[in-house]
Amino acid sequence: MADIGAALAEIVGDVLTGADIAADYGHDESLGGRAVTPAFVVRPRTADEVAAVLKLATAEGVPVTARGSGSGLSGAATPRADGILVSFERMNQVLEIDTENHVAVVQPGVTLQELDARTAEHGLVYPVYPGELSASLGGNVATNAGGMRAVKYGVTRHHVLGLQAVLATGEVLRTGGKFVKASTGYDLTQLIVGSEGTLALVTEATLKLQPRIRHSATVLAPFHDLTEVVSAVPKVVGSGLAPLILEYIDGMTMGAITYTADLQLGIPDEVRDRSQAYLVVMLENRDEQRLEADTVAAGELLSELGAIDVYVLPGGSARKLIEAREKAFYTAKNAGADDVIDTVLPRAALPAFMAEVTAIAQANETFVIGCGHAGDGNVHLAVFQKDAEKRATVLRALFAAAMALGGAISGEHGVGHAKKAYFLELEDPAKVDLMRRVKQAFDPAGVLNPGVLLDPDAEGQ
Amino acid sequence: MADIGAALAEIVGDVLTGADIAADYGHDESLGGRAVTPAFVVRPRTADEVAAVLKLATAEGVPVTARGSGSGLSGAATPRADGILVSFERMNQVLEIDTENHVAVVQPGVTLQELDARTAEHGLVYPVYPGELSASLGGNVATNAGGMRAVKYGVTRHHVLGLQAVLATGEVLRTGGKFVKASTGYDLTQLIVGSEGTLALVTEATLKLQPRIRHSATVLAPFHDLTEVVSAVPKVVGSGLAPLILEYIDGMTMGAITYTADLQLGIPDEVRDRSQAYLVVMLENRDEQRLEADTVAAGELLSELGAIDVYVLPGGSARKLIEAREKAFYTAKNAGADDVIDTVLPRAALPAFMAEVTAIAQANETFVIGCGHAGDGNVHLAVFQKDAEKRATVLRALFAAAMALGGAISGEHGVGHAKKAYFLELEDPAKVDLMRRVKQAFDPAGVLNPGVLLDPDAEGQ
Repeated sequence: MADIGAALAEIVGDVLTGADIAADYGHDESLGGRAVTPAFVVRPRTADEVAAVLKLATAEGVPVTARGSGSGLSGAATPRADGILVSFERMNQVLEIDTENHVAVVQPGVTLQELDARTAEHGLVYPVYPGELSASLGGNVATNAGGMRAVKYGVTRHHVLGLQAVLATGEVLRTGGKFVKASTGYDLTQLIVGSEGTLALVTEATLKLQPRIRHSATVLAPFHDLTEVVSAVPKVVGSGLAPLILEYIDGMTMGAITYTADLQLGIPDEVRDRSQAYLVVMLENRDEQRLEADTVAAGELLSELGAIDVYVLPGGSARKLIEAREKAFYTAKNAGADDVIDTVLPRAALPAFMAEVTAIAQANETFVIGCGHAGDGNVHLAVFQKDAEKRATVLRALFAAAMALGGAISGEHGVGHAKKAYFLELEDPAKVDLMRRVKQAFDPAGVLNPGVLLDPDAEGQ
Repeated sequence: MADIGAALAEIVGDVLTGADIAADYGHDESLGGRAVTPAFVVRPRTADEVAAVLKLATAEGVPVTARGSGSGLSGAATPRADGILVSFERMNQVLEIDTENHVAVVQPGVTLQELDARTAEHGLVYPVYPGELSASLGGNVATNAGGMRAVKYGVTRHHVLGLQAVLATGEVLRTGGKFVKASTGYDLTQLIVGSEGTLALVTEATLKLQPRIRHSATVLAPFHDLTEVVSAVPKVVGSGLAPLILEYIDGMTMGAITYTADLQLGIPDEVRDRSQAYLVVMLENRDEQRLEADTVAAGELLSELGAIDVYVLPGGSARKLIEAREKAFYTAKNAGADDVIDTVLPRAALPAFMAEVTAIAQANETFVIGCGHAGDGNVHLAVFQKDAEKRATVLRALFAAAMALGGAISGEHGVGHAKKAYFLELEDPAKVDLMRRVKQAFDPAGVLNPGVLLDPDAEGQ
């Protein structure tokens, strides 16, 4: 190991080991995950340094885990005790905002906050808002991060046009480019997006930008129950109003996040008492008058669709509600949630799924609340159950129910360590085998993030 | 071979051989491609039949080529003389138009025309219009077909949410689903899209639909030259007008397609004489008044950006112009074009590329004209050069120029047989090797569409 440390130091200059490794490097934000101190932390400055580190790792059979900001929720950035953690904190430059092609070229350590500030200067926006502005673009690419605006703009995958990526064997590849389409060989870009650090390390990403639209309005509509909310969603999407945000929040979660944020939404008690589910609709338009007309139209549509009432939130309250919704994970965490999941379903299957959730929760004496991206069918649930075995039973049942309804385990958090056991148990074995062969094609020595996603290795559990 | 024929007949019922194989099965629409009569044509009715055919092919080492409508432009559906052609003509059902989730589930033999008619009944649309309505969805998935509306809606890749696909070894997989995002393992859907029949045969596709927007308007703007047109494009995109179509047409091509279509656009001779390039902007809006206002705004913007004049085309002329543009390939073919290419570039690199095109054409005494998806940087060029060696020199130089400017060989036609030699010569060998390893992970016996894309086999040349 000392030899490896010396070889790493020769590549990257300084290597952290032992007590010099800050506790933060050992974990991400996943609930119930282990913290692991890696053997080495390296902070490369260039793709060539990353390539040299990976070449060494493959030659020596040393595991490598990549880390952006560590804000992930599946443990995919948790290092191995015998491994190298590659932290991208020094590769944090916005290399280019290209206003002709409407793309940004960024290093993996750039945060969403930094990119948002830089694009704003040019009237452009990178429209993926997973809700944690300190998150890094490299991490977003690795988990295919989503967020509330996906109903209009899609998720990370839909905005990554090209990558510079380093294979485990040290080759530095460029995939894609500053164009939205190509039919020139397999789409390696899309294969690497969402691969949770198991196929390649991303050292640069070319991201599609959109015109930044200045005017937005937020409508909050309490409904009697979630079934009504969910039935309304296809009609709102089909109306052509093209909402930027279309979120459902259950009554319990609404109470928790508004209480935590000390947020007054002006909803009378008698409405609140009758409402078990809320729909939040945010619209945007480059023209203020059109926005106003659309907001009226959305309100009328929501009323027709059964909303108890419709509230157009003033800018300040709207911003605070969205922020509070973005922080729902932390609210759940602070309230003592033992795990969070983010299953994705055909959106029309949400009522059936939520009925299953209620039944599973009751059968296992477990408390489950949530909110979600209703337009995308992406349900975020907080699971309160201290008993690990019972909790595993609940999670397995929830995932199995989602998959039986045509869904998948994770919409945007990823599988990582946290959901791996369920993924390997519930997924079609032929698909898992194929993914393992693809992994082998990229990383023959199996050094990239072992224990994650496909690897049954017990250390990952 | 007789044994294989009998085994195939047992699987699919009837097998075509020898003189019973119609000439159409031997080729697609690529210029200069060979026509090859396959040993067998099978027309399966189910995924299980496809699986049994592929299992047999892998066991016996027999090549398999898939065919939709045969409207491809790269020869990827050209069969092998010793191989099986799997024609999807009997798997041509729209299985579902799901109005709650806004998706269509189709078999691979469904044509774009059929899908358009079926979605229209529900006020929905599959917005990928590659310009050939007889094309099949299976073929569109295999080549990642694009077309004029990609500037607003993206290409096939952006609308394929899930697949049923059969591996060469006979496993039937389901990837993705009726949701727009997931972070649950590698994105096999996106890997199979655009793989030109070399990784798996698609037996079902789940496609994202959009609300069908009723009102559209078309603005035609003649400019002095292409550089002006291309400089205008980012500004039109950045304006937030969200054009549905943003096409450039060079003067020569405009002359050819309007002449062929007997189309009067009402452009005075003195404007036409000064104009070497046209920009076609189509807008759509669910509201007629807004469309009118946007059309006026687009006209003003184009004038500011240097348009010699701006013409709002009446509905009939607009439709005819777009149809004529869609048929530009056939116009070029009928005019005697010897090859067509569809390089994709960063759109801001179009003027530099077009300058290179002119220089390459002149240096090689070759006539090159074109048009393209200006918003996407996708340039369609018709190359008139009878001498095969000289033509190859021109094509190699054009592709090399595009790649040097950050582009790729094909935006939407694919590599197939037609562009394989250039792809293998010009692409990064480390990337080609990685793609070959991925191919091996899917198709260990190498029976799926050998000679195409990655395979240096001379039969594919």
